[in-house]
Amino acid sequence: MTDENSKELYRVTFLPGGRMVEVESGTSLIKAARLAGVHINASCGGSGVCGKCRILLESGTLTGGKSEKLSDAEYDEGYRQACLATIDSDVTITIPAESKLAKGALPTEVPIRHRARMYDFNIEDLKEAGVFVPPVEKKLLQLSAPTHEDNMADAGRIIQGLRNEYNEHGMITTLHVLKKMRSALREKNFEVTVTLSRSVSKGGKTHIVNIQPGDWTHRNYGLAFDIGTTSIHGSLVDHQTGKLISIRSDYNAQISYGEDVITRIIQAEKPKGLHLMHELVTNTINGLIAKLLLKNDVARDEITSITLSGNTTMTHLLLSLEPHNIRRAPYVPVSTFFPPIRARDIGINLPLRAVALVFPSISSYVGGDIIAGVMGSGMYRTKAVTLYIDIGTNAEIVIGNRDWLVCAACSAGPAFEGGGITHGMRAAAGAIEDFSINPATYEPMNITIDNNPPIGICGSGLLVIVATLFEHGVIDRQGKFNRKLETDRIREGRSGYEYVLTWEKEAGGNSDIVINEVDIENFIRAKAAIYAGCKTLIEGVGLQVTDLEQIILAGAFGSYIDLDSAMTIGLLPEIDPDRILYIGNGSLLGSWMSEMSNHIRRDVVDVVKKMTSFELSEVKDFHNQYVASLFLPHTDISLFPETSARLKKSE
Amino acid sequence: MTDENSKELYRVTFLPGGRMVEVESGTSLIKAARLAGVHINASCGGSGVCGKCRILLESGTLTGGKSEKLSDAEYDEGYRQACLATIDSDVTITIPAESKLAKGALPTEVPIRHRARMYDFNIEDLKEAGVFVPPVEKKLLQLSAPTHEDNMADAGRIIQGLRNEYNEHGMITTLHVLKKMRSALREKNFEVTVTLSRSVSKGGKTHIVNIQPGDWTHRNYGLAFDIGTTSIHGSLVDHQTGKLISIRSDYNAQISYGEDVITRIIQAEKPKGLHLMHELVTNTINGLIAKLLLKNDVARDEITSITLSGNTTMTHLLLSLEPHNIRRAPYVPVSTFFPPIRARDIGINLPLRAVALVFPSISSYVGGDIIAGVMGSGMYRTKAVTLYIDIGTNAEIVIGNRDWLVCAACSAGPAFEGGGITHGMRAAAGAIEDFSINPATYEPMNITIDNNPPIGICGSGLLVIVATLFEHGVIDRQGKFNRKLETDRIREGRSGYEYVLTWEKEAGGNSDIVINEVDIENFIRAKAAIYAGCKTLIEGVGLQVTDLEQIILAGAFGSYIDLDSAMTIGLLPEIDPDRILYIGNGSLLGSWMSEMSNHIRRDVVDVVKKMTSFELSEVKDFHNQYVASLFLPHTDISLFPETSARLKKSE
Repeated sequence: MTDENSKELYRVTFLPGGRMVEVESGTSLIKAARLAGVHINASCGGSGVCGKCRILLESGTLTGGKSEKLSDAEYDEGYRQACLATIDSDVTITIPAESKLAKGALPTEVPIRHRARMYDFNIEDLKEAGVFVPPVEKKLLQLSAPTHEDNMADAGRIIQGLRNEYNEHGMITTLHVLKKMRSALREKNFEVTVTLSRSVSKGGKTHIVNIQPGDWTHRNYGLAFDIGTTSIHGSLVDHQTGKLISIRSDYNAQISYGEDVITRIIQAEKPKGLHLMHELVTNTINGLIAKLLLKNDVARDEITSITLSGNTTMTHLLLSLEPHNIRRAPYVPVSTFFPPIRARDIGINLPLRAVALVFPSISSYVGGDIIAGVMGSGMYRTKAVTLYIDIGTNAEIVIGNRDWLVCAACSAGPAFEGGGITHGMRAAAGAIEDFSINPATYEPMNITIDNNPPIGICGSGLLVIVATLFEHGVIDRQGKFNRKLETDRIREGRSGYEYVLTWEKEAGGNSDIVINEVDIENFIRAKAAIYAGCKTLIEGVGLQVTDLEQIILAGAFGSYIDLDSAMTIGLLPEIDPDRILYIGNGSLLGSWMSEMSNHIRRDVVDVVKKMTSFELSEVKDFHNQYVASLFLPHTDISLFPETSARLKKSE
Repeated sequence: MTDENSKELYRVTFLPGGRMVEVESGTSLIKAARLAGVHINASCGGSGVCGKCRILLESGTLTGGKSEKLSDAEYDEGYRQACLATIDSDVTITIPAESKLAKGALPTEVPIRHRARMYDFNIEDLKEAGVFVPPVEKKLLQLSAPTHEDNMADAGRIIQGLRNEYNEHGMITTLHVLKKMRSALREKNFEVTVTLSRSVSKGGKTHIVNIQPGDWTHRNYGLAFDIGTTSIHGSLVDHQTGKLISIRSDYNAQISYGEDVITRIIQAEKPKGLHLMHELVTNTINGLIAKLLLKNDVARDEITSITLSGNTTMTHLLLSLEPHNIRRAPYVPVSTFFPPIRARDIGINLPLRAVALVFPSISSYVGGDIIAGVMGSGMYRTKAVTLYIDIGTNAEIVIGNRDWLVCAACSAGPAFEGGGITHGMRAAAGAIEDFSINPATYEPMNITIDNNPPIGICGSGLLVIVATLFEHGVIDRQGKFNRKLETDRIREGRSGYEYVLTWEKEAGGNSDIVINEVDIENFIRAKAAIYAGCKTLIEGVGLQVTDLEQIILAGAFGSYIDLDSAMTIGLLPEIDPDRILYIGNGSLLGSWMSEMSNHIRRDVVDVVKKMTSFELSEVKDFHNQYVASLFLPHTDISLFPETSARLKKSE
């Protein structure tokens, strides 16, 4: 979401076939190939160990691309190791014949990567739509000194000034400001900057929350936080411009007491446990605040507000609310709405005047993080029937538009976060995050995070692997391997048939990295739960899947999803990929927008009231939908016409 | 203002003449005589030393009434010392001939005491007028436990219950309550008492500020405080009934740093001085709170709100606002309006949820104590043109009715508080507070506080002394003694002519107690300032003194004012005494009413906005008015027709 320094774009042309792709300078050649839909054998994940990814540089220059697997003579001829080479100019490269085997005209060509369109957040658009109403504003006043004829109190003088100069009404002064007022007014001859904090509720008073001698209108900041179960993301927002200046992240310090919300609740139920959980999360927040302030040379006293969003359990722990009943049927949180709170009262180290706003939630399992995403993405303001989906251990789903909204949480299990999979792992260095397969030889191209030797498979990698294996007929609609294929990559292992992604000698660990039928079964169950949730919800409001006009993907997982893969395996309903939007961390986006505009703070109350929560386990149809989804892409193939047409074509 | 155990009333009949008065049991006989307008020589103030006050008991019984000045034989005959005797039955007594001297038929008869009618504050009237809207209410809820079909959050369940059971809307829950909510609901099977705190501003949210398991609706308290420069009065209010349960008073601990507001401001301007002044006043408040709670068996946690009123300087010191410019032209306070404040934030030891409301003021010298009186007395709701007057070192004057209000402060000097007078003193034990004179012999009857030997004259005593001396021709219209009277009580002293109230041997100190012409001059200047202030204000709004329909007296001084005396010397405008109301401590009354009814809290904003402040020193006419008032009762005797008629009659 930050304005990074935009990098140069270079064109990469792959021969034979001539597929082209534009990538940023510094992109590894195998990533470029994957994006272009070109397969290069590369099972070592970019560490250069397997040496199979050699290509020939026809024109332009590449940085790197040589290990001991390549002789100097070969290098001089133009050979490079694709996984070690990065792009710094327009280049043309040839995939050598050794990677091309018999079957098909251009066996290196594989489906092109269709990532979701990045959400292009534009403050100017919001300003135009009248949505940009900063919750905190600074106003400069040049007042006249009191006289016998005009000996109004200092506070009255300021309020009169604001009325006359800025047409401000309905103001109230805080005690903190009154204490500083007399001296502040007289320090710079009655020139002062006052900080106004707008009421969230309509018709509420505007609070005068600070006074400074002289002109300080250009220094006015807020904070936006996403409180995740695993990580906490904090950002510094400029109230003057609405811009997000800087982001910092850290693990939620609670993580040492368990990875999921249930273990955190169990901790909180122990004596003093709630206090401990509260302290851990605020410690992380305070650490991030300190870093944000230091890095950006902002004083703590220049912060007036903070918005925080998180799931229902994280919100309870942040506010020291007893989360006990969140994990016990009938799953009752203490509250879904939270009043504006003095930040200090919840242990956040900010000036006394700083107010903390906490995003409301819907239920125990549809939390403030999701509401923040719905607000931040603008879904609640659009006419288009939209599916909002945030995939993690739980997938939260919201369907609707500006007129109606329904939501549900489905327990997808941990597969999308790499859990319950033989070689599953979090999205960290060495995780296979992208993949393709040579249609002829079934040799893999493994793309890992940070180009490290592969040590496991993360959620997005798993999705692409399953989809790719399915597309190429390596597994069937039930996820079972085609035992007739001629490749040593498919074999019978301890847990039944498996595909070897990386041999031990090329891997970062000390075993082959495989995906087996049990893994695939777990994965199918996870995707089935999500799809069935979406379908149940859509049909619950009397619509069909085909009525969807837009899909918004949120969460770290969403960024790496290959949309064709997601539809191929039946995770997402079929829709024109151009209608799919990726918003990244929806929770942080919503918090930022709340810091930027009071409109969001007001509208969220209506949105939450408007939103109907479905308890999927209570909906009769859900189980049937789930069972019907336990196929690739689905029992009812007519729900995926494009996918089935593509599959037929490639057969 | 408390419902004291009402005492028995007994009738006292004085012979000759037959004047009668009804007094409470325990009243001293000389006080009863004074009320009846019967003079008994008694210059020792009730200590029994002078022995001049002997009377004859004709029927009934008296308690006490004997010292060494009376022989046992005399006692048996029925003689008693009036100043030592108290009334415990209906009695008839005779003033013996020795006290009756030649001149006039019944020389013991003097003007009857006309005290102002006590303000009869009636909660039922307020309820009928719709003014009784408790700012804090407790509601009992018996909710149903959550089920799968109804798994609303705990907070939502409570809000729904309040809506359904009590038609409550626009509620917001505080963090404090959310923290206790889960356990509280489940402790008594979802029976809870919630405390609602109403918003002061119209349309504002009702805050849910407490939750208790079970039924606690009968325990709901608030506090009302008057923060005086000298004394602080605190009272405990029952929010359920609106009743004032108990009052406690103490000296404002700031008093050791100076007696008046100016010296307190000077202290506050010293390094750390403001903090010190703030701590001293809050210490006094906290001490009184502790006593109120202990005495009435109320827990600190049962207090939800506190209202405080005081003059502008006291309010500034209470809130730690810099009072510096209050004492410097053009006399600008920091603020006249104060936001609702968390009581803890100003050092008041109450639960975190308790809100402190501080009465707004008008200017540096018309403070929240006066506004409280205007609100508490109901002056702002009456149609009658009313003069509200609170006499101390400064006299604050408000004139108007429900449609308009003007106010001013006049610096009367310290005469009314016993300052600047040779034997002036505060209203404490031994102060002469009431007085009459034998029309024939000019011998005094001195009535002292607590019947102690006289040690000085307090403000109310001074008023009666000057008026009585004037009525009996002892002093003339300029306050000069009639040097031709045959009495040793009038003599030339060091500061000119003087009247001896008490001879040294009968006094509590070691000198004669006198009042001299300089004292009288000072007193006349003080009353002239007040009267001129009233008249300037009245004429400033285009009315005449005769347009006044009602006078409300506030402050300790007002309780002892003999109304005839006050008009005789021209302190108060002439008006039917039945139209004069005494409200006692108006500041405390207003605070109590604010604790009792949210109507007052709302209306005060309009009242303050409506009130026009006159700066008397800026009004041309004021000086002329002042000079014209430097006579008894006034240069223009036609302003006091009744008084001049009475004086003529007695000549």
